[in-house]
Amino acid sequence: MKIIGTFLDEISCDIPHQNWGPAEWDKDFAAMKAVGIEEVILIRCGFLKQIAFPSKVLMAEEGCFEPYYDYPEMFLTLADKHNMKFYFSTYESCNYWLKGNYKKEIDISKRVCEEAWAKYGHHKSFAGWYVTNEVSKKVHGIIDLFAELGKFLKDLSGGLPVMISPYIEGKKAVPSNESVLNNDEGISIEEHYKEWDEIMSGIKGAVDIVAFQDGHVDFEELYDFLVANKEIADKYGIECRTNSESFDRDMPIKFLPIKWDKLWYKLKAAERAGYEKAITFEFSHFMSPNSMYLSAGHLYNRYKEYINK
Amino acid sequence: MKIIGTFLDEISCDIPHQNWGPAEWDKDFAAMKAVGIEEVILIRCGFLKQIAFPSKVLMAEEGCFEPYYDYPEMFLTLADKHNMKFYFSTYESCNYWLKGNYKKEIDISKRVCEEAWAKYGHHKSFAGWYVTNEVSKKVHGIIDLFAELGKFLKDLSGGLPVMISPYIEGKKAVPSNESVLNNDEGISIEEHYKEWDEIMSGIKGAVDIVAFQDGHVDFEELYDFLVANKEIADKYGIECRTNSESFDRDMPIKFLPIKWDKLWYKLKAAERAGYEKAITFEFSHFMSPNSMYLSAGHLYNRYKEYINK
Amino acid sequence: MKIIGTFLDEISCDIPHQNWGPAEWDKDFAAMKAVGIEEVILIRCGFLKQIAFPSKVLMAEEGCFEPYYDYPEMFLTLADKHNMKFYFSTYESCNYWLKGNYKKEIDISKRVCEEAWAKYGHHKSFAGWYVTNEVSKKVHGIIDLFAELGKFLKDLSGGLPVMISPYIEGKKAVPSNESVLNNDEGISIEEHYKEWDEIMSGIKGAVDIVAFQDGHVDFEELYDFLVANKEIADKYGIECRTNSESFDRDMPIKFLPIKWDKLWYKLKAAERAGYEKAITFEFSHFMSPNSMYLSAGHLYNRYKEYINK
Repeated sequence: MKIIGTFLDEISCDIPHQNWGPAEWDKDFAAMKAVGIEEVILIRCGFLKQIAFPSKVLMAEEGCFEPYYDYPEMFLTLADKHNMKFYFSTYESCNYWLKGNYKKEIDISKRVCEEAWAKYGHHKSFAGWYVTNEVSKKVHGIIDLFAELGKFLKDLSGGLPVMISPYIEGKKAVPSNESVLNNDEGISIEEHYKEWDEIMSGIKGAVDIVAFQDGHVDFEELYDFLVANKEIADKYGIECRTNSESFDRDMPIKFLPIKWDKLWYKLKAAERAGYEKAITFEFSHFMSPNSMYLSAGHLYNRYKEYINK
Repeated sequence: MKIIGTFLDEISCDIPHQNWGPAEWDKDFAAMKAVGIEEVILIRCGFLKQIAFPSKVLMAEEGCFEPYYDYPEMFLTLADKHNMKFYFSTYESCNYWLKGNYKKEIDISKRVCEEAWAKYGHHKSFAGWYVTNEVSKKVHGIIDLFAELGKFLKDLSGGLPVMISPYIEGKKAVPSNESVLNNDEGISIEEHYKEWDEIMSGIKGAVDIVAFQDGHVDFEELYDFLVANKEIADKYGIECRTNSESFDRDMPIKFLPIKWDKLWYKLKAAERAGYEKAITFEFSHFMSPNSMYLSAGHLYNRYKEYINK
Repeated sequence: MKIIGTFLDEISCDIPHQNWGPAEWDKDFAAMKAVGIEEVILIRCGFLKQIAFPSKVLMAEEGCFEPYYDYPEMFLTLADKHNMKFYFSTYESCNYWLKGNYKKEIDISKRVCEEAWAKYGHHKSFAGWYVTNEVSKKVHGIIDLFAELGKFLKDLSGGLPVMISPYIEGKKAVPSNESVLNNDEGISIEEHYKEWDEIMSGIKGAVDIVAFQDGHVDFEELYDFLVANKEIADKYGIECRTNSESFDRDMPIKFLPIKWDKLWYKLKAAERAGYEKAITFEFSHFMSPNSMYLSAGHLYNRYKEYINK
């Protein structure tokens, strides 16, 4: 079971920034490529006032700050160079859709993505879209948001694939800036199935790939959720991947690189459940020999041993 | 005052994993040896579903996951090579003894240790046992647990020594995954003395070494607790060491390497109180030049200067 | 907009210690100097029982612990060598002034600073004083404390300048050891102005430099507070600097190096508001190529690019 893609956590909401420039990113893309990572997915093009590129829409309408680098341009140039695929991502306002106004969220992201497509669409590595909004249930008008944005982005780009990465409302679904590690109770697999059967039914044709985050449930529960998610996705013709988180959710420091045993266990569970592709959140902090966290480099070595076995 | 032993925090409950393989561990054992560390103590052979070796007992009965490495085998091989002593540790279920069923806890650990002794007992570095359950008072049937397990392990192994490492219910005795740093009030030395006089009276003969953790009380309170602990241990013929924690309990990040001044202060307090041996929790994350935390390497250098003075 | 000074976070209250000795500090002073940092400011000479030099006053009267190094001596020697300016700082008891007895706080700090001046005043780099007490409002007798201590220190040293570094009671003014990142509501600029107009009126002549911390308000609010602070300081003839924090207040890990974009944004806001000098809290953990946090070295590189543009 191989990890073939990773998120690029620019702009981050809860992972401290590494302050890399083009040279450091070039080195990291090479490190990804060396272990078979072929796809890089921008986690979001903006979060509140922080944005990944000098978007006229976001600076004018949302008062976002001019970024120091044009990250998509940098990433696409590197993806071109390293022969990788890049997914551009929508904007996370933290305001509109989470507070009832998902139509405004759709509207902004449409215009930001139009701007991005005009600016970056010529890159050979521009390979798809990621819709950034993360949900575990059909809340905040998410079915309409995914369906309308997904269709729009495919139409805009001549049919490039659209990816989402939801989570499971499991025992470990707690806010990253709270000290607790667990809820009292996670969602049942039946309730989760029911929610996602309805959501996927509503977004089929507009969303091509669904990659559930694998870190919110207990390790021993994971397999059953993986099976359920794949079953629903298969039913609606959506490609199902696992987003195998490479950070550890069980430790007081939120977050540092995961213990290799845990990642290995999760990858094996996905393999057993019939998955063909894994992506991860994310390589550069948690699995990279270039990471600010030195244990990430050791995780890289363990993973490399595993795939070369 | 020298640190002659360290825990090996595999399997960890609250310290992020470094993802080391045999080569990294070899290097770290050499770094230990270079500053006089002669003993390595496995902190536990399992915690919930995570285990340190592919124990048939734990995989069959507790549903534990197969580990990537056989850590005891790796550690014993390295201890053989570096001429060090290794203590094997019991299993922490987090379920049975903490929820009233200490007899089941004893039963599992007995069988796991039998399995381990059969597998690893031939190593020349197999030098003793560590009973992993951490308490500050006579709760959860701990006297019977220590006494019965201790006696069993000594009988099993031809009298190898048994170690425990309790803590003091001091002001800093707060859960590692809560953000607070202090309780309102720590235990009084009188109450602590009374508890441990009773506990040590009940475990004498079964437990050979008690190494109280030194990080839960204010630095200015520590000396008095060190004196009390040694007095009780001496009374019952138990060897008394200090477990001088090398991580900092006073900082919002839980946990990073301790300030050298604090460790130095604690070691001096133990020396003044008549202690002859210190161990630490733990070298590889918090005092090692190989640690993922770079300040650990500087702590190593400060400690090396101190012991070479 | 250049950072011309940095705090030295010895003794720290919430940032883990790096355990550097003279060689590591020498290297770090050189790294500071290479990016134009000319001033180093001791954050405090003691905090609770931890102290930066073997002060007879603090060891005898406050029961403080003998420190391993004499930090002011080390820092002054290095500042002499690197041709930098050093500010000595007062003692933070955490007891007296915060609990109503600011007269005792003044009294201790006076005597500690007399001791320090006698010991260290001969160094050519001894360039000023920092009064360590951090406030956002006129609480705990702070006007009298700043005024009396400031005047005393200037008289003691032939008029060396006195600096303070208050904060703004903004949305991000939350305790470092709580997991939350935000208050419900920050102070209004009007209320802040009123408080500081009164405080600065009461300390003029005794305090020469005020450097407000810039991290407690939202980025988009910062400019207005910078303007207000400068306006008040100008009115009372106090030099106004920005203390541009180089750690990130928006992340669950408290604290790691800030994202360069954020620091860049804050520096630009101060420049726009007419500031001439920035200092930072603090270089050695958060902006240094020698930091235990590797992202600090990358921040250093980004900052170096920016000042060399």
